[in-house]
Amino acid sequence: LPLVDHTEGQLFLNDTFKIIMEEVLCKGTDIKHKVCEWKEPKELALLLDLELRATGEPQHRLLQRVQDVAKYSIKTSHPRFMNQQFGGVDYHALAGRFLTEALNTNLYTYEVAPVFVLMEAEVLRGLRQLVGWTEGDGLFCPGGSASNMYAMNIARYQHFPEVKSQGLCGLPRLNIFTSSDSHYSVKKGAAFLGIGTDNVIIVEVDEGGRMIPDDLDEKITLAKSQGAVPFFVSCTSGTTVRGAFDPLDLIADVCEKHKLWMHVDAAWGGSVLFSKQHSHLLKGVYRANSVSWNPHKMLVAGLQCSALLLQDTTDLLRKCHSANATYLFQQDKFYDLNLDVGDKSVQCSRKVDCLKLWLMWKAVGSIGFAERVDKAFNQARYLVEQMKKREGFHLLQEPEFVNVCFWFIPPSMRGKEGMADYQDRLAKVAPVIKERMMKQGTMMVGYQPLGNKVNFFRMVVFSPLLTQKDMDFFLDEIERLGKDL
Amino acid sequence: LPLVDHTEGQLFLNDTFKIIMEEVLCKGTDIKHKVCEWKEPKELALLLDLELRATGEPQHRLLQRVQDVAKYSIKTSHPRFMNQQFGGVDYHALAGRFLTEALNTNLYTYEVAPVFVLMEAEVLRGLRQLVGWTEGDGLFCPGGSASNMYAMNIARYQHFPEVKSQGLCGLPRLNIFTSSDSHYSVKKGAAFLGIGTDNVIIVEVDEGGRMIPDDLDEKITLAKSQGAVPFFVSCTSGTTVRGAFDPLDLIADVCEKHKLWMHVDAAWGGSVLFSKQHSHLLKGVYRANSVSWNPHKMLVAGLQCSALLLQDTTDLLRKCHSANATYLFQQDKFYDLNLDVGDKSVQCSRKVDCLKLWLMWKAVGSIGFAERVDKAFNQARYLVEQMKKREGFHLLQEPEFVNVCFWFIPPSMRGKEGMADYQDRLAKVAPVIKERMMKQGTMMVGYQPLGNKVNFFRMVVFSPLLTQKDMDFFLDEIERLGKDL
Repeated sequence: LPLVDHTEGQLFLNDTFKIIMEEVLCKGTDIKHKVCEWKEPKELALLLDLELRATGEPQHRLLQRVQDVAKYSIKTSHPRFMNQQFGGVDYHALAGRFLTEALNTNLYTYEVAPVFVLMEAEVLRGLRQLVGWTEGDGLFCPGGSASNMYAMNIARYQHFPEVKSQGLCGLPRLNIFTSSDSHYSVKKGAAFLGIGTDNVIIVEVDEGGRMIPDDLDEKITLAKSQGAVPFFVSCTSGTTVRGAFDPLDLIADVCEKHKLWMHVDAAWGGSVLFSKQHSHLLKGVYRANSVSWNPHKMLVAGLQCSALLLQDTTDLLRKCHSANATYLFQQDKFYDLNLDVGDKSVQCSRKVDCLKLWLMWKAVGSIGFAERVDKAFNQARYLVEQMKKREGFHLLQEPEFVNVCFWFIPPSMRGKEGMADYQDRLAKVAPVIKERMMKQGTMMVGYQPLGNKVNFFRMVVFSPLLTQKDMDFFLDEIERLGKDL
Repeated sequence: LPLVDHTEGQLFLNDTFKIIMEEVLCKGTDIKHKVCEWKEPKELALLLDLELRATGEPQHRLLQRVQDVAKYSIKTSHPRFMNQQFGGVDYHALAGRFLTEALNTNLYTYEVAPVFVLMEAEVLRGLRQLVGWTEGDGLFCPGGSASNMYAMNIARYQHFPEVKSQGLCGLPRLNIFTSSDSHYSVKKGAAFLGIGTDNVIIVEVDEGGRMIPDDLDEKITLAKSQGAVPFFVSCTSGTTVRGAFDPLDLIADVCEKHKLWMHVDAAWGGSVLFSKQHSHLLKGVYRANSVSWNPHKMLVAGLQCSALLLQDTTDLLRKCHSANATYLFQQDKFYDLNLDVGDKSVQCSRKVDCLKLWLMWKAVGSIGFAERVDKAFNQARYLVEQMKKREGFHLLQEPEFVNVCFWFIPPSMRGKEGMADYQDRLAKVAPVIKERMMKQGTMMVGYQPLGNKVNFFRMVVFSPLLTQKDMDFFLDEIERLGKDL
């Protein structure tokens, strides 16, 4: 007899679903409940009794464990979770995710994923249309870093197809260009692909955090003069910290001049393309060769949902990554082999990441997404205006996007900007407020230094269920937590 | 007002859950229902109405879509899905996956994933113990190919730490060694990492598909004499097609002799370590430097669940992959920064893949897993015995694992092995039977050629809910579908 039969198993799943509904989705999104139940690691380990043992446990004990996991996990769907760009919840997306898990298939061949092979193609087509491409290629990847790495590898393959078989050995030094405010995945990717982090040339940004095209042009020329081979420019649409948008049109001119692959890391900002009002921020994106776009961020599709989009129509993606495994991609199948998309990927097993986005898109339509994006901009604007009405909130800069970066100046420090240790003291404010908010569980927001700017908060405003009341609470709470500092 | 509020959203989720229960988990595991509802791609696209439009749709229409996606998707939990190593269902794992989706967090810092940072460490510890390591490191990766690539990159970093910053340019040619029966991800990884597929040296296998250590030794010596730098041997425990186990102890001797990194791709076979009776197949695995192990295969944890395990205790994983992003891994946090595991990964966002395995492990215990593994071996044995009792089933070889590879010889071809076109005709049998089974929806099993062996079926027997009746049905059905060929 099996250890668990279908009936018993389905009963357990049903009970788990009830706990999820109650603890994660009702209480977990209710402002009367905490966003986190902070425990020190040692205490939490004891509470969870994590140890894996020889014998199994009865169902009621396991349900208690489900309850505990829910209880001590961060409520990322809570209106007061503003810590990162994956907060909030979309129920249609979540329904798509549950269905994905239950169907448990693998997006590599039409025979095991007929619905999802067709669906992924359609979703990628929809995203590409917003970029401005009627044709092209693409793939969902396990996160934006992977999408960026894919772009890098495909660009390298286009410049030097022999790299696939012969490797980099014997080739000249390759150079990648990206701004100082770009995401760290560009460097991680360069290291992983054997290009090396020193070969990622950092381009300067303007006061708003946008790449300076003239500096890019100069650094490309300099790199060439030093014997390197520039091949890839990674622009950013929506930088992680400040939410800046690189001037794509001007960068495209530089890339065309030097014949470099232009990649746009729009993991965060890509969703702005839905909005007629704000899509100008990505003006010129259609001139890129590739775009990374994470609907798990601003569109609240849920982790993971990252699309790599390509303008290419010459099957570069497959040529670059294929290995033609005969056990999976048999050539004597009874259907069109182009539907076996697995060989476009460097993964073998690949999760289905398109259904959640597709179902959500069907539910709200492109217009609905546009409204959400516009609303997020408005909310950010509201937050900025409220900050300006209060003492103690100093904006890092006027936001270009929905990242609102600011210092909170505690009452004791106000008007004392001239003091010698002012910056040192200011640097310590955000970490203390952060510790307090987490230990009290009232909200979560991130902070970081940037260049010579000491620790400041970064509020990201995008969850469709966020209200002005939540913004007001946020400001009140920062004041409350920092008033004695 | 938001487009969807919590109440309406939760109602939709609840209705979706009912459809999942009914269509995917009840009908989808019931042998009275089909394993697949085959449609030609064009017809399926029309049925699904995939197009993404400007306006949203009403809830009842969306629920119909959920129903349609379920209807036309392959029922991988069905007892007659034997197409790949991710068939079957474990309800505790599935409960863990639903909870993971609902909690929607990111496994990079303790502050956003306190439960899962601790849980992942515990699960990895449990897996490492089975390998035979009391200490070590590791990470869950998005699939076995990614795990294998990680191992390759870490080994490269250990041999040449400067690769991280300087890249491969200027270094000698690096060589990787793996058997002809190993998974194609070794080549894909070598291409992606800039090493090149030509630098993957193929080691010969014996008649059972196991790497020949003497050939490995010779090829390493030869590579050195040709100026290459061997650094990495990827052994396989449970090859994809034949389920062969490379002789790890003998290979470890060769790796030690030449001071190479020994990696074991145990994506498929790793779970055998739970069984006292069968773990000898991986004898010597503790001597490896790294192991990839996919609990989403034999343990039915659900896609994706792939662990990379390392014997290393010098923090190689973090050193090799870290980028020290200040917006995420602030150095002035109020808790132990070692708990921020994100910088061990080349991903930024990383899905939580440990909860499903942890909850299942708690449910059945290590003993339960051992019983499942032993049962799978017994079922495979049963299948082999039944095949021997029937005419027309020719085993490729006696199985070492739960992969049962065989040719079906249709009645018209029996006793005619000497005919000139015998192999050509035999090669066409499996594709036709496959097409018929899919179009009738009665079952799914994979086939492939291997070297000079023409198309044969590969049955993988491991789902804990599989019965002897299912095996008997399988054989009857192959006979029924192929009797007129």
